[in-house]
Amino acid sequence: MNGKLYGIGLGPGDPELMTLKAARLIKAATCIAYPMLETGTSFARSIAQDHIADGVREIAIEIPMSVARKPAQDAYDKGAEEIRAVLEVGQDIVVLCEGDPFFYGSFMYLFSRLSEDFEVQIVPGVNSVSACASVVERPLVARSEVLTIVPATLPADDLSEKIANAEAIAVMKVGRHLNKVKDILAAQNLMDFAHYVERATLPNQKAMPLADAPDVAPYFSMILVSKGNDPWL
Amino acid sequence: MNGKLYGIGLGPGDPELMTLKAARLIKAATCIAYPMLETGTSFARSIAQDHIADGVREIAIEIPMSVARKPAQDAYDKGAEEIRAVLEVGQDIVVLCEGDPFFYGSFMYLFSRLSEDFEVQIVPGVNSVSACASVVERPLVARSEVLTIVPATLPADDLSEKIANAEAIAVMKVGRHLNKVKDILAAQNLMDFAHYVERATLPNQKAMPLADAPDVAPYFSMILVSKGNDPWL
Repeated sequence: MNGKLYGIGLGPGDPELMTLKAARLIKAATCIAYPMLETGTSFARSIAQDHIADGVREIAIEIPMSVARKPAQDAYDKGAEEIRAVLEVGQDIVVLCEGDPFFYGSFMYLFSRLSEDFEVQIVPGVNSVSACASVVERPLVARSEVLTIVPATLPADDLSEKIANAEAIAVMKVGRHLNKVKDILAAQNLMDFAHYVERATLPNQKAMPLADAPDVAPYFSMILVSKGNDPWL
Repeated sequence: MNGKLYGIGLGPGDPELMTLKAARLIKAATCIAYPMLETGTSFARSIAQDHIADGVREIAIEIPMSVARKPAQDAYDKGAEEIRAVLEVGQDIVVLCEGDPFFYGSFMYLFSRLSEDFEVQIVPGVNSVSACASVVERPLVARSEVLTIVPATLPADDLSEKIANAEAIAVMKVGRHLNKVKDILAAQNLMDFAHYVERATLPNQKAMPLADAPDVAPYFSMILVSKGNDPWL
């Protein structure tokens, strides 16, 4: 009988924002897997580290830092094969996922390679949008408002159109796209409604009005925009 | 010195999907508050109940089941005044919030009445969108996809336009709007891409392709639509 594949959301970064279920399943795991950068660091593992038992088998999936698709796909192919080998001998495996596994997460690349052949259980996690809203202390959406979540990686024209048609907006993965997003928001007179957050819920988090944001943003940064005038009042 | 107001996200319903931080703060609380229906039941309290210490002071904010705004606003006025009285004598208070406090949550109505006068800390929670995606085992968004979250309470024309312009869609608060949403999705040939979920992560949850959904949906139901053909592959 094959093992079961767990995709475990760890939340946005503060280890205390992991769910009770995630902590229980990580503690009980005999084999874990997680994405790792070429530098050898794994954000997912660092969030979970206090719950990982001694002697657990660890599969680090090294993800190349390349914008090209092929090297990353090759890395997920290799990682999925390692996980498959564990599942086929009947051992369960817990994949550690930053944030929520199904919300822009790399777990999807493993899920797509393995979910047809093995039983899967997803444990949802607190996503970065909720985390950023809690940090800036601004509600995301109320009542009949629409929330649009857009990656900053979109071409400027697409991004501009999405933002123009939206009410409340979360711009994900800002990083090197910061100036493009700023220009779009400024052109739409939205700078006064925009907040910038980086590394939400981590010790080195930053949060401020977008107008005061630094010139260089890390990958884990977000811009929240609410066009409404405190519509939840 | 005034007490501090905590808005604590409890996640979608399974008590194990609460964060470690939420559980710790609830356990330590000496005063809690939560919304309650006229029937005397509180979904938020039921999620948190195993962590509530004996002898804790409880403020139940009775929310009238009316579509009119005024009775609910009066209820939040009254609840906010009760909370204010606790904070003003220097006691902290933990407000229990279903899901995430800033994601369509009733906590916003208390926040708007109290946040200018008192220190607030928000603890984000797993939201229902991530919960529903985990239940149907379908990724929400990957790479440069846009996620649009729309309440089913919108007028049909607005809802139809939002859905037409979106990629991945979560339709919230389906309830009595089920047939309206179904008609819109059918008209846009999206029925085959839509999943229905009610009471996600609770013992009585249901999840199925929208085409097989029951005729009557509870308030806590959602429809997830992904127009892509497994774009995460």
